[in-house]
Amino acid sequence: MNETLQEKLRDQVRAANLAFYDAHERGSLPLMQRIWEHSARVVCVHPGWPILRGWSAVEDSWRRILGGPGRAQFILTNEEISVSDDMAWVTVDENLMTVQGALAVAATNVFAHTPDGWRLVIHHGSPMFPNGRSPAADQH
Amino acid sequence: MNETLQEKLRDQVRAANLAFYDAHERGSLPLMQRIWEHSARVVCVHPGWPILRGWSAVEDSWRRILGGPGRAQFILTNEEISVSDDMAWVTVDENLMTVQGALAVAATNVFAHTPDGWRLVIHHGSPMFPNGRSPAADQH
Repeated sequence: MNETLQEKLRDQVRAANLAFYDAHERGSLPLMQRIWEHSARVVCVHPGWPILRGWSAVEDSWRRILGGPGRAQFILTNEEISVSDDMAWVTVDENLMTVQGALAVAATNVFAHTPDGWRLVIHHGSPMFPNGRSPAADQH
Repeated sequence: MNETLQEKLRDQVRAANLAFYDAHERGSLPLMQRIWEHSARVVCVHPGWPILRGWSAVEDSWRRILGGPGRAQFILTNEEISVSDDMAWVTVDENLMTVQGALAVAATNVFAHTPDGWRLVIHHGSPMFPNGRSPAADQH
C-alpha cells in the first residue's frame, strides 16, 4: 500500500471513529446505527458488561444506553490507528465526564472496509483502574 | 468462502486461541512469543490496564506477568469465532481461578492470517462486574 493511500484510509478510519463518539455524545441511535456493520459477526463489550454479539443485541444495548437519561462527554486521548487492506483498528483512551464523576476507559474499535465505507465490527471498552492495574493483573 | 474452507479456518483459529491460554497457564514466554505477531500494530489490554501497543511493550508485559509467582487457571466459556478472509476474532469468557478468588473476564482476541499461520494482533480483556454492568454503564 503506498503512503498516500495509507494516509487516506487512516483519515477515513479516524473520521469513522470520531463519528462513533459523536453519535454517543449526541445520544443519537440513528447516527449509531450508521456506524456499525449490521451483521451477526459484530461484537460489543461495554465497560464491565458481558460480551454482546450480533447486530440485534448490540443495537438493543445502544437503544437502551442512548435512550437513558445519562449523557457522557468524551475527551479522547492517546489515539492510534492501524490500517490493513480491509480491516483497521483504533485504540484510544476515553476520558469520560459523567454525573458520577471522571472515568477512564481503554477502548479498542475495529472497523471493516465495506462497499459502504468503514463499519464498526468490534467495540471493546474496559475501565482503567486508577492505579493502572487490576487486583488480578498478575494473574492475567 | 466455501463451508469446508470456512470450517478449516475456524478450527485453525480455535487452536490458535487455545494455544494462547495454554501458554498463559503454563507460564511460558516462548509459547506466548509464538502466538503473537511481532509487529508495531499489535495491541494488548490486560484487565484494568492501560493500552499497550507494539510487540516490544506487549512482550515486556507478558515477561513480567508470566515471570511472576501467580498462576491462573482459565475455564473458557461462551466462545464464538468469526473468520473473514485474512482476519478472525474470538470472543470468550475467561473464568479465572486465582489465589485471590474467582474472576470473570470478557476477552476479544483478533488474529491475522499470516504466511506463518494465525497470529494474535489484539488481545483485550475486561473484568465483568458481578452485577453485569459497571457503575457508569448507563453513560457508556
